[in-house]
Amino acid sequence: MAEGYLKGRIRREDIITTAVSVYAEAGYHGSSLREIARRSGITHAGLLYYFPTKEALLAAVLERRDSEDTEREHLAVPPGLDALRHLIALAAHNVQHPGIVDVYARLAAEAVAAEHPAHDYFERHYKMARDYAVASFQVLAERGELRPGVDPAYAGLNLVALMDGLQVQWLSGGGAVDLVGALRSYLESLLAVPLG
Amino acid sequence: MAEGYLKGRIRREDIITTAVSVYAEAGYHGSSLREIARRSGITHAGLLYYFPTKEALLAAVLERRDSEDTEREHLAVPPGLDALRHLIALAAHNVQHPGIVDVYARLAAEAVAAEHPAHDYFERHYKMARDYAVASFQVLAERGELRPGVDPAYAGLNLVALMDGLQVQWLSGGGAVDLVGALRSYLESLLAVPLG
Repeated sequence: MAEGYLKGRIRREDIITTAVSVYAEAGYHGSSLREIARRSGITHAGLLYYFPTKEALLAAVLERRDSEDTEREHLAVPPGLDALRHLIALAAHNVQHPGIVDVYARLAAEAVAAEHPAHDYFERHYKMARDYAVASFQVLAERGELRPGVDPAYAGLNLVALMDGLQVQWLSGGGAVDLVGALRSYLESLLAVPLG
Repeated sequence: MAEGYLKGRIRREDIITTAVSVYAEAGYHGSSLREIARRSGITHAGLLYYFPTKEALLAAVLERRDSEDTEREHLAVPPGLDALRHLIALAAHNVQHPGIVDVYARLAAEAVAAEHPAHDYFERHYKMARDYAVASFQVLAERGELRPGVDPAYAGLNLVALMDGLQVQWLSGGGAVDLVGALRSYLESLLAVPLG
């Protein structure tokens, strides 16, 4: 029983890993459960047992990434200077993993359409990211660690947008773009204290 | 003869306009020449006379946008403060035209894949945009119009990335995101003179 459960968990994780690869090649809309089943080495019916719809599998892919990011970078730290440092660490990690960044950038762009199954996920995700970034700049402002005249609301929105936009530049530019350096440069232009 | 030629030109422009709508709905990869022909009110063979391949039609869509942007915003002004003001005007125009922004954001994300037919276009496009932005910040630095410590190379890269990233935030956020205000705020945080 316990062994069967474990096998099921592993199979489920394998399917998610395969889905990430297939999304990276064909985009979410260009992918099919049939193809993901084939590449996972199971039958179509077998895959449907774990993920009854395309949307259910997409949700699992997105949830896995969020939980991995949160765990690895301790994104649950309170808003402030440390939170910004963790975002830079996250960007440095992403630069080592172009595959998942590619999937994510394409999904985010596809999902601006209101009827896309990941639309609500990205709307929530962006709102959460913006709120966290804005709260961090507000804490900095209260502590006098922000340059005078910098608006925390715009600074936070721009930080989230910049991380997204830099990923596309970096993915398109074939290594010519220093993503982490650019992000540090942006933050340093807003701070009244060293970023460290 | 002249009338036939004019009709051909108009038909060609109609097809491009329809293609923009279809890309916006289904993405480039999700679109087909057959569907675009149907929606343009011509036969598939008729469309192939103007655009023999999917890639040829995509190229025409991208070229039209570039030439419209250049003409409208006089982007051919020399790099410097005026160039940055024109980029803000371009962003203000884009906010009034979510359809084409949506197409463009999705295409840019799809086209990070090296084998995508628009990959070379976006690589060139981004490089040109970055060079222009960096040159503008260099001119500002030489004239003492840039805050001390701001790196023109990063400032230019970040400007292009920010414009892209803000578009995705704005498209996803259902009107909650002030794209033009955010862009102005970014530029003002770098300038030693009023943006005007």
